[in-house]
Amino acid sequence: MDRRSFLKTSAIGGTAAAATTLAAPLYAQGKRTLTMVTSWPRGFAVLDDAATYFNTMVDEMSDGTLTIEKKAPGELVGAFEVFDAVSSGQADIYHAADYYFIGQHPGLAYFTAVPFGGTAQELTNWYLHGGGHELHNQIGEIFNMKMFLAGNSGSQSGGWFRKEINSAADFNGLKFRMPGLGGKVLGKLGASVQNIPGGELYQALSSGALDGLEWVGPFADERAGFQEVAKIYYTAGFHEPGSGLTASVNLDVFNELTPAQQKIIEYSAMATTHTGLAETLANNGAALARLQQQGVKTMQFPDDVWDAFGAASKEVMDENMDDTLFADIRNSFEESLRSSAEWLQKSDAFYVEQRQRVLNQG
Amino acid sequence: MDRRSFLKTSAIGGTAAAATTLAAPLYAQGKRTLTMVTSWPRGFAVLDDAATYFNTMVDEMSDGTLTIEKKAPGELVGAFEVFDAVSSGQADIYHAADYYFIGQHPGLAYFTAVPFGGTAQELTNWYLHGGGHELHNQIGEIFNMKMFLAGNSGSQSGGWFRKEINSAADFNGLKFRMPGLGGKVLGKLGASVQNIPGGELYQALSSGALDGLEWVGPFADERAGFQEVAKIYYTAGFHEPGSGLTASVNLDVFNELTPAQQKIIEYSAMATTHTGLAETLANNGAALARLQQQGVKTMQFPDDVWDAFGAASKEVMDENMDDTLFADIRNSFEESLRSSAEWLQKSDAFYVEQRQRVLNQG
Repeated sequence: MDRRSFLKTSAIGGTAAAATTLAAPLYAQGKRTLTMVTSWPRGFAVLDDAATYFNTMVDEMSDGTLTIEKKAPGELVGAFEVFDAVSSGQADIYHAADYYFIGQHPGLAYFTAVPFGGTAQELTNWYLHGGGHELHNQIGEIFNMKMFLAGNSGSQSGGWFRKEINSAADFNGLKFRMPGLGGKVLGKLGASVQNIPGGELYQALSSGALDGLEWVGPFADERAGFQEVAKIYYTAGFHEPGSGLTASVNLDVFNELTPAQQKIIEYSAMATTHTGLAETLANNGAALARLQQQGVKTMQFPDDVWDAFGAASKEVMDENMDDTLFADIRNSFEESLRSSAEWLQKSDAFYVEQRQRVLNQG
Repeated sequence: MDRRSFLKTSAIGGTAAAATTLAAPLYAQGKRTLTMVTSWPRGFAVLDDAATYFNTMVDEMSDGTLTIEKKAPGELVGAFEVFDAVSSGQADIYHAADYYFIGQHPGLAYFTAVPFGGTAQELTNWYLHGGGHELHNQIGEIFNMKMFLAGNSGSQSGGWFRKEINSAADFNGLKFRMPGLGGKVLGKLGASVQNIPGGELYQALSSGALDGLEWVGPFADERAGFQEVAKIYYTAGFHEPGSGLTASVNLDVFNELTPAQQKIIEYSAMATTHTGLAETLANNGAALARLQQQGVKTMQFPDDVWDAFGAASKEVMDENMDDTLFADIRNSFEESLRSSAEWLQKSDAFYVEQRQRVLNQG
């Protein structure tokens, strides 16, 4: 972000009082302010960052005729109440991870991430060019919302533990935080799974209310400070290989916007994913090195633990297949994944393997 | 692209005469039309598609106050003359691959792709969050242009051949099309390297003027029809692991735009890369399957050929290090790549390996 955009953003975030005072004359000039509720505490890396990118882009491209005022959890509603708040019209737009709302519809899991699902790129391939966005909006129609993926965390880490995982049995009785269908998978392995908002996780891990947790990845996890209270970090996880973030607009509000404003929302969502994911991946490597300097030990789950994740994941997915929209979403997603994964193995994956081999010789 | 945007796009492309007639009154209403010159024949998959995405986004988000009229090669200037045309002010904006212009500045290679360089994601990490965009604009300042990456082809195929490559010696004397620094690498191996615009490649390959060529990847190559005149297709290549496409605006023209219009250009470029790359990757798998049905044999270069590519690539990169801006760009890029590659190996790559292993068991 350049200095000018940063100043603009600060002005939006920092002068709520001024904005309120100006509301009437601004509206008279054809200006409109939307209220956004999020699941992220202010300043949380990757996630709140994505909401800020999105809001800044909308403001800048609309020349200030459409601005978005962001409310952190607790300022208007709680972290997990944002879906219902926008559905009912209490707020205009939310920014969150849709797998928080699998109680509202199980298919929402696919628009964040599912166990053994797609990387960020594979999710995007499906979402924009394999029917995913249309299916997301089919769920949106049920709840009177227009849905857009706006952000991606990249491949999420296996998580923070106080002791090593040497077999699937080590999950038995473990008090672990993992949302979405991934949490249901760990439940099959006997874990006591809890979904706790991000802003409350550090406290839960330090107090012993949790034995372990997964949050995002090195860049976001370091900022949250988990390295202070757990020292074992599994770098790859089965549960969220590339988690999409959603910006969802109340449908009545969306329909009142001009066609240009609607397009500004649609393309800001894409640009947010593009630049936010790159920022995360540009910073994860250095963040991981700093975590290791603070005594964090990085590990990978052994093959037989991955096998157990795989078997339990299949069970969880199959349990939801009675819902026809869930089944449509799953089939569409898996077809897209199969088609794009084969080429990626023959091109990107083979290339990177050769590059690393050749460069390490010299 | 939804139906509405398609109709809008068609109207822009199809009514040049009407646009000319309307130019004076539109300008009086504060509307502005920019002339874009490209290196791509109309309808060329991936590349011309990216230019169309970009132009459509700018039109839609600016509510038609900023439109871009696209000229294919030969309509105003030739495919490789677009850089000079925008630098001199003959045209307002170009869409091309900047490695076509390494004669103007060798550092431009980095903004498309370099041998053993970054994947599309790694390029984006560097460009948006590792100093790449600023360095791109340092070259732009020399030539009076503002630079934006707007599109990415993904990892490019090793190319089309009439006979198998079993050792590096098989490149000796081969008449092969490959632009950029990759072409210089094949030159070190004895190939007779030619850079020919995309629109002339099919003819050159059928006539025997070329023994082989690389273009983009299955989705774009199938559309160009190379499978009709060569049957051996190497899927991974060393030369362009994720090629950026550039939208470059004449600096005087850019400075006349409003701040909102400038931001619309910046974020349209990001959104174009996001959706264009996903479209390519969503289609490459199915395109590859169709090519195979037409008798195309897919192969990978053997390890010792990759070793030869690696040694020759290092020579080529080192030859340009006398130029300090080239050296700055190379050092910045390689530092970013090292930092992001390690995490990607420990997360995405490890995950995908486990996913493919586990899913193939069941």
